[in-house]
Amino acid sequence: MYTVIIFSHGDFSKGILNSAELILGNQQDVFAFSVQENCDLDSLKSEIETLLISCEKQGEDVVFLTDLFFGSPFNIVNSLMQTYHFEHVTGMNLPLLIEILSQRNHKSIKETLESSIPISKDSIIDCIKYFQSNL
Amino acid sequence: MYTVIIFSHGDFSKGILNSAELILGNQQDVFAFSVQENCDLDSLKSEIETLLISCEKQGEDVVFLTDLFFGSPFNIVNSLMQTYHFEHVTGMNLPLLIEILSQRNHKSIKETLESSIPISKDSIIDCIKYFQSNL
Repeated sequence: MYTVIIFSHGDFSKGILNSAELILGNQQDVFAFSVQENCDLDSLKSEIETLLISCEKQGEDVVFLTDLFFGSPFNIVNSLMQTYHFEHVTGMNLPLLIEILSQRNHKSIKETLESSIPISKDSIIDCIKYFQSNL
Repeated sequence: MYTVIIFSHGDFSKGILNSAELILGNQQDVFAFSVQENCDLDSLKSEIETLLISCEKQGEDVVFLTDLFFGSPFNIVNSLMQTYHFEHVTGMNLPLLIEILSQRNHKSIKETLESSIPISKDSIIDCIKYFQSNL
């Protein structure tokens, strides 16, 4: 079991978690953080550090899912890389989150990422082209 | 200029639009629909059809972005494929939405999809591995 921290600009993080829970049911040890307009980035970073310290104490692995390469959430997570141990995938979509949540009880986070990142990429599909070539 | 319809389980659609608008500013002709628990799928489908008919009358191209291959939003969009003309990408993430919104003033939707789908797939990155091999 690993802790999942979803971190985005605006309401994306809470929205994608809501969607995953609608499909999979309520999830434990999943946290959603947001960079909102005019929010205090330092206090947001402190809040995340408190969570990381608590996971470390409990011996729980952590994976961050962020929205955008070199966006503010990505940059905050990167600034924590030297101090804390975690995994971090950016460019999240719902298939990625569902894979990561579904594998938590029987795989390590490293094993999960090996299979779920290719699944996440393959799940982005031009449907009109897909049906033209598959039907 | 084309109309963008974001359609997901739960609050994902509204959340990702909120995040894109935080980055790009307020957007015109972008709509977010959600399949919520116990919602009436037929009336949701009718609402979307009304929008499609209005876009058709104005000669506006439409692209749907859905969350999950063969999820309920995906299936509703698929059921409209025979009657209306639109593009449809599933597995959306924020880099895809930003590309699609940013290109609207100078590219057709078909041109936009050709470049933005590969960008969207490439934006899903295992950051720890990325920094280990690039720094």
